[in-house]
Amino acid sequence: MNEFELIQKYFKKDPLDPFVVLGNGDDAAVFAPRYDSEAVISVDAVIAGRHVPDLCPPDGFAARLMGRGLSDLAAMGATPRYVLLSLSLPTLEPGWVDHFASRFHQLCVRFGVDLIGGDTTKGPLSAHLTVIGDVPRGKAIDRDGLKAGDDLWLFGPDLGGARAYLGVLNQGEQDQEIWAERYWRPEPQIDSGIALRGVANAMIDISDGLCQDLLHLLDRATKSTAVNLQSRKLPLCEHLVARLGLDKALEYALTGGDDYCLLASIPPDLRVPPNGKLIGMVVKSESDRILLDGNPLPEFWQLGWDHNL
Amino acid sequence: MNEFELIQKYFKKDPLDPFVVLGNGDDAAVFAPRYDSEAVISVDAVIAGRHVPDLCPPDGFAARLMGRGLSDLAAMGATPRYVLLSLSLPTLEPGWVDHFASRFHQLCVRFGVDLIGGDTTKGPLSAHLTVIGDVPRGKAIDRDGLKAGDDLWLFGPDLGGARAYLGVLNQGEQDQEIWAERYWRPEPQIDSGIALRGVANAMIDISDGLCQDLLHLLDRATKSTAVNLQSRKLPLCEHLVARLGLDKALEYALTGGDDYCLLASIPPDLRVPPNGKLIGMVVKSESDRILLDGNPLPEFWQLGWDHNL
Repeated sequence: MNEFELIQKYFKKDPLDPFVVLGNGDDAAVFAPRYDSEAVISVDAVIAGRHVPDLCPPDGFAARLMGRGLSDLAAMGATPRYVLLSLSLPTLEPGWVDHFASRFHQLCVRFGVDLIGGDTTKGPLSAHLTVIGDVPRGKAIDRDGLKAGDDLWLFGPDLGGARAYLGVLNQGEQDQEIWAERYWRPEPQIDSGIALRGVANAMIDISDGLCQDLLHLLDRATKSTAVNLQSRKLPLCEHLVARLGLDKALEYALTGGDDYCLLASIPPDLRVPPNGKLIGMVVKSESDRILLDGNPLPEFWQLGWDHNL
Repeated sequence: MNEFELIQKYFKKDPLDPFVVLGNGDDAAVFAPRYDSEAVISVDAVIAGRHVPDLCPPDGFAARLMGRGLSDLAAMGATPRYVLLSLSLPTLEPGWVDHFASRFHQLCVRFGVDLIGGDTTKGPLSAHLTVIGDVPRGKAIDRDGLKAGDDLWLFGPDLGGARAYLGVLNQGEQDQEIWAERYWRPEPQIDSGIALRGVANAMIDISDGLCQDLLHLLDRATKSTAVNLQSRKLPLCEHLVARLGLDKALEYALTGGDDYCLLASIPPDLRVPPNGKLIGMVVKSESDRILLDGNPLPEFWQLGWDHNL
């Protein structure tokens, strides 16, 4: 099977979106912009041995790829529309590709995106997903704008599970279903992102760990801006607390990465979507950038997660 | 140096295009559509050991990546606007990255595109470039529409040089400057593509070899449509004819790949941009799809090039 046949068999689908002028199968895809909208675009790599284990199940590979990519659109408040897939495979195992493609297309349907282009090639197992969405003009939520007096809100599942999964994975235990679910099926918080248009002052998705991504927001804020997190309000994975204790659960929640929640800075007088969890406040501080219950956070908790397996 | 610092140092540039609302450095980039335009988008992989030699000079890597990607936009008649770069590097050699990034940014300036997003990660040497351009509404030139009576035109440099370079490369000779230039510095035919809006019935860029890409156009045409190429009109690389003889030069020109010319099917009554080369005619034939001077083309010449080094 050559590249052309591979695409025809596994990746050619007629687009559902009426704004697609030309889908997969030409030199490039063409789409018309929606009225009074702006395009939002990002690309993310998922590389075996780096972002996922070398022996990666095809459905998990597809789900992490899609979850990670669409989470970037969610973090802008964008509505996902299209994806382009650049896939590199060491060998063509039809079973693997079949499972990967099935799951990939399932997720396209679920999130309402069309696969409108891509590239396939022989090479080390990796995929690079370009995601495209849109927002009404001027409504994209960027990382700028966190300010003292705002509340800090989290949208998404409880924290630390993905990190805990990697911990047990390295010890050969893979039976922690909750954690496996968090790691292999990250859930992009698209509806929350859309609901936060015109509400959040600044937003980011937590892919590198709550503290590290919080620092990205703080980097863009004015000097002396800090955040005071309330440990009791942090949504810790219960199973993680039971198994490893509160301290470890808290550490994983603050530094773990791969959680794909949205972290938003919201003025206290605005109405917040009901699924939000208030975890702290933006404050003024000359000496610290992140506080936990009013105390400075240990330095190493601020380093975050670098996706290195 | 971590990923964040790498991006800051080498890949963060303020966008020049006034339609960019938010460039590199957030969860995603945002751009506004131009009035009455459609977006054109494609992604291409360049993988060391597959599309380029394992030991790949950084400037050549950048030039092939950009040339290959922008050639897809040229083939749609699109004006290039933005690129997103997903880069995977086995080690962080500042010298290599510095050269790569310098050349990459030079080419961005030259082709008028802004780098508005990307991803960098540790992994096998490869890059996946997402290219975005636009066309006036309804003006994208796709692969459909080749029809009997059309003339077949080529836009770009003479043919076969890139294939010849790989031939001598495998024999340890790398002194063929013309061929090296063709291979390492493919020249996307953007101006020709734009000039062919409203002129070409169908268009493709020659990346897999003239014959193979011609077959992609014929696959979309009605049954019994064929092409008669005129061997004397094919722009053969003179140096190739001198060195390997006419037959080999013709074979490389028809099957070689990596030439990145535009191949367009144009009604005979339309005015063609002056740099075009008329190489044949679209005809009717029940038995053959590609003819050379009226005779059937040898079967193996139709197989084309699969980018395998």
